[in-house]
Amino acid sequence: MTKIVTFGEILLRLSTERHLRFSQAESYKATYGGGEFNVSVSLANYGLNTEYITRLPNNELGNCALKEMRKLNVGCQNVLLDGDRIGIYFLETGTSTRASNIVYDRENSGMSTLKKGMIDWKEILKDATWFHWSGITPSLSESAAEACVEALEIAKDMGLTISCDLNYRSKLWKYGKHPKEVMPKILQYCNVILGDLDTANFMLGLPQMNPDYQNQESLPVLYDTIFKLIPSLKFMATTLRYSVSASHQRIGGILYDGNTIYDADVQDVTPVVDRVGSGDAFMGGLIYGLNEEPLNKQRALNFAVAACCLKHTIAGDYNLVTLEEVEKLIGGDFTGKVSR
Amino acid sequence: MTKIVTFGEILLRLSTERHLRFSQAESYKATYGGGEFNVSVSLANYGLNTEYITRLPNNELGNCALKEMRKLNVGCQNVLLDGDRIGIYFLETGTSTRASNIVYDRENSGMSTLKKGMIDWKEILKDATWFHWSGITPSLSESAAEACVEALEIAKDMGLTISCDLNYRSKLWKYGKHPKEVMPKILQYCNVILGDLDTANFMLGLPQMNPDYQNQESLPVLYDTIFKLIPSLKFMATTLRYSVSASHQRIGGILYDGNTIYDADVQDVTPVVDRVGSGDAFMGGLIYGLNEEPLNKQRALNFAVAACCLKHTIAGDYNLVTLEEVEKLIGGDFTGKVSR
Amino acid sequence: MTKIVTFGEILLRLSTERHLRFSQAESYKATYGGGEFNVSVSLANYGLNTEYITRLPNNELGNCALKEMRKLNVGCQNVLLDGDRIGIYFLETGTSTRASNIVYDRENSGMSTLKKGMIDWKEILKDATWFHWSGITPSLSESAAEACVEALEIAKDMGLTISCDLNYRSKLWKYGKHPKEVMPKILQYCNVILGDLDTANFMLGLPQMNPDYQNQESLPVLYDTIFKLIPSLKFMATTLRYSVSASHQRIGGILYDGNTIYDADVQDVTPVVDRVGSGDAFMGGLIYGLNEEPLNKQRALNFAVAACCLKHTIAGDYNLVTLEEVEKLIGGDFTGKVSR
Amino acid sequence: MTKIVTFGEILLRLSTERHLRFSQAESYKATYGGGEFNVSVSLANYGLNTEYITRLPNNELGNCALKEMRKLNVGCQNVLLDGDRIGIYFLETGTSTRASNIVYDRENSGMSTLKKGMIDWKEILKDATWFHWSGITPSLSESAAEACVEALEIAKDMGLTISCDLNYRSKLWKYGKHPKEVMPKILQYCNVILGDLDTANFMLGLPQMNPDYQNQESLPVLYDTIFKLIPSLKFMATTLRYSVSASHQRIGGILYDGNTIYDADVQDVTPVVDRVGSGDAFMGGLIYGLNEEPLNKQRALNFAVAACCLKHTIAGDYNLVTLEEVEKLIGGDFTGKVSR
Amino acid sequence: MTKIVTFGEILLRLSTERHLRFSQAESYKATYGGGEFNVSVSLANYGLNTEYITRLPNNELGNCALKEMRKLNVGCQNVLLDGDRIGIYFLETGTSTRASNIVYDRENSGMSTLKKGMIDWKEILKDATWFHWSGITPSLSESAAEACVEALEIAKDMGLTISCDLNYRSKLWKYGKHPKEVMPKILQYCNVILGDLDTANFMLGLPQMNPDYQNQESLPVLYDTIFKLIPSLKFMATTLRYSVSASHQRIGGILYDGNTIYDADVQDVTPVVDRVGSGDAFMGGLIYGLNEEPLNKQRALNFAVAACCLKHTIAGDYNLVTLEEVEKLIGGDFTGKVSR
Amino acid sequence: MTKIVTFGEILLRLSTERHLRFSQAESYKATYGGGEFNVSVSLANYGLNTEYITRLPNNELGNCALKEMRKLNVGCQNVLLDGDRIGIYFLETGTSTRASNIVYDRENSGMSTLKKGMIDWKEILKDATWFHWSGITPSLSESAAEACVEALEIAKDMGLTISCDLNYRSKLWKYGKHPKEVMPKILQYCNVILGDLDTANFMLGLPQMNPDYQNQESLPVLYDTIFKLIPSLKFMATTLRYSVSASHQRIGGILYDGNTIYDADVQDVTPVVDRVGSGDAFMGGLIYGLNEEPLNKQRALNFAVAACCLKHTIAGDYNLVTLEEVEKLIGGDFTGKVSR
Repeated sequence: MTKIVTFGEILLRLSTERHLRFSQAESYKATYGGGEFNVSVSLANYGLNTEYITRLPNNELGNCALKEMRKLNVGCQNVLLDGDRIGIYFLETGTSTRASNIVYDRENSGMSTLKKGMIDWKEILKDATWFHWSGITPSLSESAAEACVEALEIAKDMGLTISCDLNYRSKLWKYGKHPKEVMPKILQYCNVILGDLDTANFMLGLPQMNPDYQNQESLPVLYDTIFKLIPSLKFMATTLRYSVSASHQRIGGILYDGNTIYDADVQDVTPVVDRVGSGDAFMGGLIYGLNEEPLNKQRALNFAVAACCLKHTIAGDYNLVTLEEVEKLIGGDFTGKVSR
Repeated sequence: MTKIVTFGEILLRLSTERHLRFSQAESYKATYGGGEFNVSVSLANYGLNTEYITRLPNNELGNCALKEMRKLNVGCQNVLLDGDRIGIYFLETGTSTRASNIVYDRENSGMSTLKKGMIDWKEILKDATWFHWSGITPSLSESAAEACVEALEIAKDMGLTISCDLNYRSKLWKYGKHPKEVMPKILQYCNVILGDLDTANFMLGLPQMNPDYQNQESLPVLYDTIFKLIPSLKFMATTLRYSVSASHQRIGGILYDGNTIYDADVQDVTPVVDRVGSGDAFMGGLIYGLNEEPLNKQRALNFAVAACCLKHTIAGDYNLVTLEEVEKLIGGDFTGKVSR
Repeated sequence: MTKIVTFGEILLRLSTERHLRFSQAESYKATYGGGEFNVSVSLANYGLNTEYITRLPNNELGNCALKEMRKLNVGCQNVLLDGDRIGIYFLETGTSTRASNIVYDRENSGMSTLKKGMIDWKEILKDATWFHWSGITPSLSESAAEACVEALEIAKDMGLTISCDLNYRSKLWKYGKHPKEVMPKILQYCNVILGDLDTANFMLGLPQMNPDYQNQESLPVLYDTIFKLIPSLKFMATTLRYSVSASHQRIGGILYDGNTIYDADVQDVTPVVDRVGSGDAFMGGLIYGLNEEPLNKQRALNFAVAACCLKHTIAGDYNLVTLEEVEKLIGGDFTGKVSR
Repeated sequence: MTKIVTFGEILLRLSTERHLRFSQAESYKATYGGGEFNVSVSLANYGLNTEYITRLPNNELGNCALKEMRKLNVGCQNVLLDGDRIGIYFLETGTSTRASNIVYDRENSGMSTLKKGMIDWKEILKDATWFHWSGITPSLSESAAEACVEALEIAKDMGLTISCDLNYRSKLWKYGKHPKEVMPKILQYCNVILGDLDTANFMLGLPQMNPDYQNQESLPVLYDTIFKLIPSLKFMATTLRYSVSASHQRIGGILYDGNTIYDADVQDVTPVVDRVGSGDAFMGGLIYGLNEEPLNKQRALNFAVAACCLKHTIAGDYNLVTLEEVEKLIGGDFTGKVSR
Repeated sequence: MTKIVTFGEILLRLSTERHLRFSQAESYKATYGGGEFNVSVSLANYGLNTEYITRLPNNELGNCALKEMRKLNVGCQNVLLDGDRIGIYFLETGTSTRASNIVYDRENSGMSTLKKGMIDWKEILKDATWFHWSGITPSLSESAAEACVEALEIAKDMGLTISCDLNYRSKLWKYGKHPKEVMPKILQYCNVILGDLDTANFMLGLPQMNPDYQNQESLPVLYDTIFKLIPSLKFMATTLRYSVSASHQRIGGILYDGNTIYDADVQDVTPVVDRVGSGDAFMGGLIYGLNEEPLNKQRALNFAVAACCLKHTIAGDYNLVTLEEVEKLIGGDFTGKVSR
Repeated sequence: MTKIVTFGEILLRLSTERHLRFSQAESYKATYGGGEFNVSVSLANYGLNTEYITRLPNNELGNCALKEMRKLNVGCQNVLLDGDRIGIYFLETGTSTRASNIVYDRENSGMSTLKKGMIDWKEILKDATWFHWSGITPSLSESAAEACVEALEIAKDMGLTISCDLNYRSKLWKYGKHPKEVMPKILQYCNVILGDLDTANFMLGLPQMNPDYQNQESLPVLYDTIFKLIPSLKFMATTLRYSVSASHQRIGGILYDGNTIYDADVQDVTPVVDRVGSGDAFMGGLIYGLNEEPLNKQRALNFAVAACCLKHTIAGDYNLVTLEEVEKLIGGDFTGKVSR
């Protein structure tokens, strides 16, 4: 049976409400999130067996995060309760011409101070089939990057499928290393990568390509550069996002399997309730699709795009949707008719 | 003087706020609604004399509903305070690509267990000029359907104009009868029907027509089928709703008097605050128009469409607008300029 | 060093939330605002030295307004604490086809009962470089109009640049004088005027022109009429606002210096969070631009338009944006991408 | 049948929540209140037929107040819709050692500018049995005091029982008259007065008595002084209030009928949710008791005291309790056991 | 290892906030509760392995209840997802002299329509050590009472310890049977009963005893009557509750093991935040104590009383406390000093 | 003229509302606080000239803190905008038998990483008369303790009066030093110390005394031990706090000037809204009193005790009271009568 282990941080998300600016907020909505965790929530919503591996402080705030994980049906049996603090991010949600703004306060979190050897990966992965991580963990600290490699080596040895969302964040990577010094080695383990071509190139130390995603014929050769550098790679996917404004996004996607480019129709999403986590919703949809019907790659991509669209309508980091809701969009029903 | 008696349920409406999903809600906004009640509120807002006939439990929750009716200036002198419980509906308001979702919890409400003979219609209708009901009441239970017939017979005998909104709800009609076994008899009493052609056909046991509402010339023959089955019918109206998304609706309407098709310009409404009750706002506008200037059928339709558009901008089931606001839209001012 | 003194009212703003109608509100959000005050807040946000001159009651409510002024970094050393009451305005924020609605409750406020001689202008203006007022103050009462003249005479004598936003409000001007009996004299002192041509004409007792702002060649002759009547005038600017609906505005602008028409690209703003104060945001941007790079008139106009666009995304009267955010829009980035 | 007409203001009450100070409030809870109106609400709750006479502005805010009156089942058929503004009061609710604080903003309200002749008292009072007013109306303006006399003369001529709550407010009475110049004439019409002895003495121009309410034998001679000055007086009642702190009140009462002193046990109320309107709850209870069982004076007093106690537990100005709840307290059950 | 299976309903709890009356509420706080479920939450908080057996509808509302169960770490693997609706209770929280008020809306819930044979008790109980139920289930319907017997027979056969909270609710028991017709048979299976003596007598058809709980010597003979009727009974406990007011409770307790009366000091709790569920907190504490140190009966009672005291300080039905917090109270520290 | 410079941290305070537990909170109220900052706010409220010296990050969160400082009229001209993060503390407010709980998340804040030489004390203190600090700063890090000494040396050289609140927090002091290794040296500079005797003894490395504060005659000899160790000490004060429960505090105080013990009546405060910051309110009152009437030591103590009592009634860290409100309590009026 499918069991997907995801590795990453879970952050306390403190967001202003109703598009208020930080200076207008007299309270913060407290939820949780984090690129990898959001993927895990998506998978749990679709009914898959999940396990999330992270470190949380053994205090009231860590305990609250655990309650949330349980509520969301994300496996938390192996969470390490020994970090110093839970990472926090503050979010001000933009609208129209005004961008959202994030202030990270995640230094010295459990994942930032994670070290090789702290996690018993052999035990944790023993009945797992898939391992997911993202480029955020190696951006936190050198030791976190090393802990990543440790996990990936074991996962590979144990024969798991390995997926990664590149998730480049310019406000992270502050410990003195450029991604291209760290990521090439870690990405070697991947079978599935989500990210746009130039982010991959940037992390792999390759020149920028400025790909034209609407010219599909031009794409295989560009993706192939990356496939060549990462021999284990079986799929690379890219979320296509055309921002009309903070409130109006147009979402599409590309999936490449080394042979064929699959693409999906671009869908309008307006107004946007919360776009944070929409890339993770794409990733979650893709992993679901590749697990559910491995041979139906077009469906996996359509699932990822529809999931990503829906995420924009939901407050918070997670894509709290059902399989049925994603299916309805895949089927072309974007009308939002009331069910009654 | 005009006095409009409306017959139906009043439901406690428990809705999540700010487009939250049910699983995100820590509280529910508590208001009231119900297809027929919403019509009554519209009419009261336009200054008409109204009376609402329903059953409510004689407890704190029934008392709260009565307070709401009084606040809204809907006549409640004849409400029966003897049902077991107030019907409830839970609402999650969608947005963009995500549809709204309704969970009904209305079984065993006072209207569901209503029986013939419980209401003294002769007394209630003695100074009334118009009687409005909808297809929801006969969908609740067999006895409620019988109680409907009782009311309509008396209303007809007393010479009232009778209007009906077909209001088909697939989540209701659970007591073992198909609408076509129940509705044809009840619809016989109607002078004014609101609904689309195929809903009427479905309820009357006629084949589906797939009408093309934009081809007006094709419409009279289709409406005539229904006029033939219901000899008392004087007007049939249809709300035209083109859903671009849950947040963007395009609203028009058709009114047919047996001779002439009247139509109204389609108007964009975006973003939608709350579309529940917008059909009832159309119905309320139509009844108002037909009472205010019976000969000006185009104006009645325009009023209904403008009222329906405005409803989408208002949270809750009711169309809390003034005559002046509807007139402004009829006059073509959709710019939403601040009045100051 | 630049120091901008602004003169006007500060009102308690009591608004319904989430587009609720007045009759749905169980509470009012309490903030502050007022045409001139909003300009002062903009200038303080951009880092200019500001001073605001008004009258507030010496009670808890006046004290709360002072705290707000300090929080916003608007100079309040010379506020007169002796009025009878703080002016109030109630706001119901519209959306889509429904307009916002304002109920003023500002009679007998400190600014309404202000009289010549109450304010020591020579002291207050001694290190100031710019004086800003608006057409609201003379609309409040005859004595307030006289107090306005007093201030302007002294400001002119002291060599300050004087700017005015015409700000015509049909719900004010209730003390028995038509604007054209009052404004021509007061506008004589102005060096910079913001307003559309026909508002200026109306206030100056000139015939309406129905200008076609999109035909730029036709504009100089129209603006010149006003420049002739007001010899001190150096700049006149007009905010161009095309209301698609209460939720969708298209914003542009014109600046004329007596020789050249400058215009700015029209920008879409949708959805609108709060359009109140967007004209003041334009004014604040224009004053900033004219102070920062006096010779770069195109930039001053672009700054004003971008600031005005951003204001629509922010709840409340004030334009709580940073210089960087305005610059980003001037640079053409309307995509609202998350900064992380 | 009993019909009680009450005459006074209805104020918009804007209060901070959860004991916040004015300077901490980001919103105000919006309800309504006013000494006389609160009495009318009590009477409506007990099932009596009521009518409230006041002036409200014919705008959205006046309309909201009317909706509230209807919701509360207080008759509002004769409200004059022509004043300039609705009076407002701002409330900060204290607790423990910190007192509540009220800022009045009620000048130029409809009741303040009320003049003799505006109200058609003969029509309004034609089927009434009781007329209630309070010392607040004559404190607002000279013309309001005259309008009071006009109403009382007609009420007396028509044989109504007349009750008054003295309601002295030091922050009112600002129009240049001392209560003793105004009140003696108006109090002549009263049959029932609520107030403490020294407030009555103060208003009647008599010396202060410093009564010892716990020494009942000493009281008749003191009340008799007032009975002598007001020959129509049949009952005078006094609410006894021992403030331990803002959160802990001890409530008793005295009723004197010219012959006998009735007193009621002192009850502890802690914690206090909202003490505003508790005197009005006493008045409402007393009027109810004197109408329901005119001969049972002890019960009327007990009812008033129990009603007053309960009011302290309810947020807002009104005593939203049922007859059954008051009866339970009269019966001695203060335990607050859950009913389930 | 200890595993405690609890059987009962889980209700959606819709409560007004801040002591508002039902008629003041514009929203309801939505949580969950129910006598037996609250016990299960207590046990999970103390770290015990729990499993909760109930029926929930297979819709969004049932799904939300499941999320809550998971969040609280209550086992929900065997919940039946097939009922018609989730039971609801509406709560208005009283204070001081005003009692809380509950409106039940739980008819036709999954537990009300539960029938014998629906639950596979042998499978569910196979690794359980303790079975807890309460007098609420047999009060719902005849079939629910029968399903109770079925469960108890199997639990007894499998050698589990069986505990029951009598939980008499006068607003339930509406299906035509008196408790004494139903309960004696069901109580036969119990090893531990919580309830006061006269509730037990009432349910067992015995005469009322009016026990004086403060006279401990008088108690054994009274408890013995019940022990004689229920041979399997090992412990009977009674929560002692002295209500000073809705906001001030004094809590003690009695435990009897057939030989010895154990009692605990009475503790003041004031102010009370929420007393609903405080009896369940006692039950949860008692079960924990009897499992943790079976021989230390005094400690089990002290634990139950301290847990019950703490529950009154927590909003909602559940006793969200830690072992450490209960221990602190048992140790005598009631001072509520800030931990920092 | 008096100018009081205070040195310490300003923390973002994230608290649950309405006594909710951390695990129940879906949002956090965001305000600010910190032992020393709260003192500065008190002094600003009383009208003194204040300046607060701290380090804040130069990001949106630091900017929000600056806005708060300005709003509160606390001087912030010399705040260093260069730290890494703002310290945070999470607060769950207890009630009755349940204690409040604080989770600190303040490591790596600007004050924790402060180093000697970062602040230009000579410039900052040049027109100051008083310098206040507390035992929290040296508890944060070794470098912060050194920065403290640096400030104190300069303040002493410049002739300022120096006051300190000992503020021992067991959850701080985590950098490897015991207070007695650090504090004796720093306390040498103090002229005024607030703290209880055994806290002082603990920090000075003296044995515990278990003083009996109600036996005043026994106190001078105990305080003298400390006066001997700190020759510059002129006043030592102790807040007396008797916790009946988290909701009921009894507050008194002692002031000793080396010769005479002054004490103040113990006052009941119940219910407590928020006790955090009440010690700081005492400190603020004491500093105010000693500045306002240096010779009236009894009044200074009474002022401190009354201010401390009032603080318990106010949500948040700060004592938002007026001089008049403190005076009213000093005058013995604890009745909390409404001012109207």
